[in-house]
Amino acid sequence: MLKKIEVFNENDFDPKRFKRLIVHESPYFKILNFNFKAGQELPIHSHDIDGQLSITILEGTGAFLGKDNARIPAAPGDVLVSDINEPHGISAETDLRVLVTIAPPI
Amino acid sequence: MLKKIEVFNENDFDPKRFKRLIVHESPYFKILNFNFKAGQELPIHSHDIDGQLSITILEGTGAFLGKDNARIPAAPGDVLVSDINEPHGISAETDLRVLVTIAPPI
Repeated sequence: MLKKIEVFNENDFDPKRFKRLIVHESPYFKILNFNFKAGQELPIHSHDIDGQLSITILEGTGAFLGKDNARIPAAPGDVLVSDINEPHGISAETDLRVLVTIAPPI
Repeated sequence: MLKKIEVFNENDFDPKRFKRLIVHESPYFKILNFNFKAGQELPIHSHDIDGQLSITILEGTGAFLGKDNARIPAAPGDVLVSDINEPHGISAETDLRVLVTIAPPI
């Protein structure tokens, strides 16, 4: 099967809270899109399981969040890779669209 | 560990052939960036193994390629999901940057 998801058309923004779209879920990986209005964030968190995730910036700017208040600049085309059990998060400076891929899926 | 890769800065274009950058490789997934000049393509292909891949359009336009000469329009923010053993490819109309994630890694 080939499945196309137009992330820019299938998810929008919510002034109250970031908006999440499940792009794909299978035994191999899970793909999510998060849209943040400027100022919104996904607070730093982690899960105590094996695996890794990537966060890809599709549009907008902000910061990847890490432990000890780390803020790593995030711009279009940037990819952050993290272990799932490592604290990570993201904060939006402008309206921001990101794609998160988690393997294995959780 | 948190690892950031600035795909737009770490890979460029080659007028002779698409350029490939290994963004990340681990037991969980493999992430690659391909940059295509307008007119270049990754011809349709498949591998006879289990797993899935995603192709995310970071910049530019083109077409995802499928069997029977299928051409599925590809624009920024579009994500194509394919089984690894299903024929797939990509063709660039403009200069095109894509991110490919393969799980499990091959």
